[in-house]
Amino acid sequence: MKPESTGRIYWNGEMETLGPEQQRAIEEPKLLRQLEYAWRASAFYRRKWRAAGIDPRQIHCAEALVTLPFTEKDELQETQEATPPFGANQCVPLDQAIRMQATGGTTGRPLRMTLTRHDVAIYNELGARGGWAAGMRPGDLLFECMNYSLYAGGVSDHLSFEHLGACVAPVGIGQSKRLIEILRDVRMETCLWSTPSYALHLARVAQDHGIDPVSLNIRKGFFSGDAGLAIPSYRRRIEDALGLVASDIYGLGELGGFAAECRYRDGLHFLGQGLLIAELVDPASGQAIALRHGAVGELVYTTIDRESCPLIRFRSHDHVRVSTAPCPCGRTGFRFRVLGRSDDMFIVKGINVYPLAIQDLVLGFAPVLTGEFQVILPDPPPITYDPPVRVEAGDGVDPAEFPALRDRVTVRIREILMFTPDVEVVSFGCLPKTERKARRLYRRYRGETP
Amino acid sequence: MKPESTGRIYWNGEMETLGPEQQRAIEEPKLLRQLEYAWRASAFYRRKWRAAGIDPRQIHCAEALVTLPFTEKDELQETQEATPPFGANQCVPLDQAIRMQATGGTTGRPLRMTLTRHDVAIYNELGARGGWAAGMRPGDLLFECMNYSLYAGGVSDHLSFEHLGACVAPVGIGQSKRLIEILRDVRMETCLWSTPSYALHLARVAQDHGIDPVSLNIRKGFFSGDAGLAIPSYRRRIEDALGLVASDIYGLGELGGFAAECRYRDGLHFLGQGLLIAELVDPASGQAIALRHGAVGELVYTTIDRESCPLIRFRSHDHVRVSTAPCPCGRTGFRFRVLGRSDDMFIVKGINVYPLAIQDLVLGFAPVLTGEFQVILPDPPPITYDPPVRVEAGDGVDPAEFPALRDRVTVRIREILMFTPDVEVVSFGCLPKTERKARRLYRRYRGETP
Repeated sequence: MKPESTGRIYWNGEMETLGPEQQRAIEEPKLLRQLEYAWRASAFYRRKWRAAGIDPRQIHCAEALVTLPFTEKDELQETQEATPPFGANQCVPLDQAIRMQATGGTTGRPLRMTLTRHDVAIYNELGARGGWAAGMRPGDLLFECMNYSLYAGGVSDHLSFEHLGACVAPVGIGQSKRLIEILRDVRMETCLWSTPSYALHLARVAQDHGIDPVSLNIRKGFFSGDAGLAIPSYRRRIEDALGLVASDIYGLGELGGFAAECRYRDGLHFLGQGLLIAELVDPASGQAIALRHGAVGELVYTTIDRESCPLIRFRSHDHVRVSTAPCPCGRTGFRFRVLGRSDDMFIVKGINVYPLAIQDLVLGFAPVLTGEFQVILPDPPPITYDPPVRVEAGDGVDPAEFPALRDRVTVRIREILMFTPDVEVVSFGCLPKTERKARRLYRRYRGETP
Repeated sequence: MKPESTGRIYWNGEMETLGPEQQRAIEEPKLLRQLEYAWRASAFYRRKWRAAGIDPRQIHCAEALVTLPFTEKDELQETQEATPPFGANQCVPLDQAIRMQATGGTTGRPLRMTLTRHDVAIYNELGARGGWAAGMRPGDLLFECMNYSLYAGGVSDHLSFEHLGACVAPVGIGQSKRLIEILRDVRMETCLWSTPSYALHLARVAQDHGIDPVSLNIRKGFFSGDAGLAIPSYRRRIEDALGLVASDIYGLGELGGFAAECRYRDGLHFLGQGLLIAELVDPASGQAIALRHGAVGELVYTTIDRESCPLIRFRSHDHVRVSTAPCPCGRTGFRFRVLGRSDDMFIVKGINVYPLAIQDLVLGFAPVLTGEFQVILPDPPPITYDPPVRVEAGDGVDPAEFPALRDRVTVRIREILMFTPDVEVVSFGCLPKTERKARRLYRRYRGETP
């Protein structure tokens, strides 16, 4: 691949190419200030740290961060219920907050958060680094198809990309027909910011209206919200369906979009230098794992320059494999690939299995399989049985071929993922298509209410 | 009423209290620069002015603005269709634009517009002046229930109110149940930014769920999008239903929210000083009308500091009555009350009738009438017949009373509005409730397709 052909390579070259010593010199004092601030301003952290017998004012180096307890989303939800509206981790009076967001939760209870002007500026800086790394530029007409209603990915991402200088149009969700009309009317190359599954949904809606999705003229797709792009075959499917180049941007609603692929597309670069500290930990024991090439673990984040609601050792529950090999783009932030989420991971006879890995494998069977699938766990762990996996046959596949197909999928999963599934092939159209975040793992434990 | 009890009265005291001479001294040079810029950068205006035989470079004083032709929304829509995506009035390359909005149109064709960073700053400044005048303050938790999808009132208003310093939560439309849950969870006094009809819709949804709307704890309502608050009885109905203080903010999607009530609530203050020039014209002849106390006419606007798509003598088609009596708040911008829109106005035997005036009158019959009504024009002008007006009886009103009610409404309209309607009283629930902008005038000309 040729080097970046024109102009500016980085949004913030100084930060994105920091060496480890420089990075530490910038981040350590900010971290210590943030801990002191949280101790002083956050009743939530003061209580939490006191209960753990830790006084963060005794912490004088970045290494000691690991001595602090983790922060779980659940705890933040609980403090909000106990102390509405924003909980005991709201560190500024409301007259200093300018935005309220809510992040979704697997538990269904939203987490409300506010941002000050300063926090918004940091959110924008992170988002602009990510967008730029992924290839977004001023001059791009970007249609944002994320949820603007309370969801942190709506207005806040919109503003991040305006900060970068793209021309951003708010579309939101559930507007596919209207978006298709607009794309037809604007008659120019455009860009999309959406979940990966929305891109395929948009392509389907276009086809249903007799429009070739490639003719929509979307040439760059920036995706986030689920890990779909981590799967080469799923990425290819999106790129082929719409005729675009797909780039992955990663973030958390609580923190913003702080990681992205560069043009070399060899994993997500962490781009939070100077604003956010990332650690790798063992998801089970919570022990720190060195951020070394090839290391696998859960990413945990600490804000080091946040006013409204600092997050100290905030668990992402995203499991990743880290790469520290130098990247030709020159960014020095470590890279990672998402293996899956801890709430999605299940263990079959000692083997860790991520639905994402199954997705990759199932997509390899296209077009005789559509790539849609479901994993159903009928009993709680330990999983000593062959877990049921439903896969969907492609359009026009003869049901007479289902048994042979089932055997091929079973063998392939056993070979690659080291467990034996109980595969069922279902007819085309039997599995739900997803417009937003795809759900593929269902825990339907017998005798329990979900 | 007591003077403003605490702190800052104005968002921008310098501009909001300008005397006429100061205002002219600031605005005239900006106007002349804007005209020169439009001549140079806008193929649309160059063509338009050439066709009218006018060279704006020959204009050297603000008074000569009246020699320029009006700009109609239709023309902008046409140039966009001829030169997609943004038409010949797009004055900057796309890499200088950061936001795309679309404004609705009575014709159904949206008008696409871009804003540069500078244009966004002006939009924010206008919106903050308006919000502040209407009583919005830092510390307010403001739920924005406008449409975020492309509509200028969504993201752009959100940002204006963040600029003011309110804590703004994006809610959007169609989220009433969710909003009610959030209001219940946050357990604090909050504010609403919506259309007037949405406020009543929200109150109905609460009631349908067995919740007293007043217990939702919304204490300030900021309203825009239709002229409902111009009608005292409609305003009172909203205030009573939710137990809030309702304030009116006025704007156009193309220009932002640049007028608002102050705490004395004696009409909308024009707040565009230094950014926007307002003129009053005769809607039929287009002749200028002096902005004198009591004058009635259509407001026409000219941007004087806009980069992306300047609007010169842009017709609002809103008919207003002007007040120039001094206001105790100290703002010097003229005030106005909206009488109605030219596309809503109809002439019965020489009398101008605005549905807004009928609304005011019908609401006076509450609770025997609900206040919902429809005017149906079965034949194109001239209206030489008694135009049909449907009014809705209140809940529980005996149909035996309908004839007497019909006669009372007929007499009252004749007395107050000087025309004789053909009134029909329909039963409770027969007229559509509106969640967004209310529609009350239907032109259903016989033998024409609408």
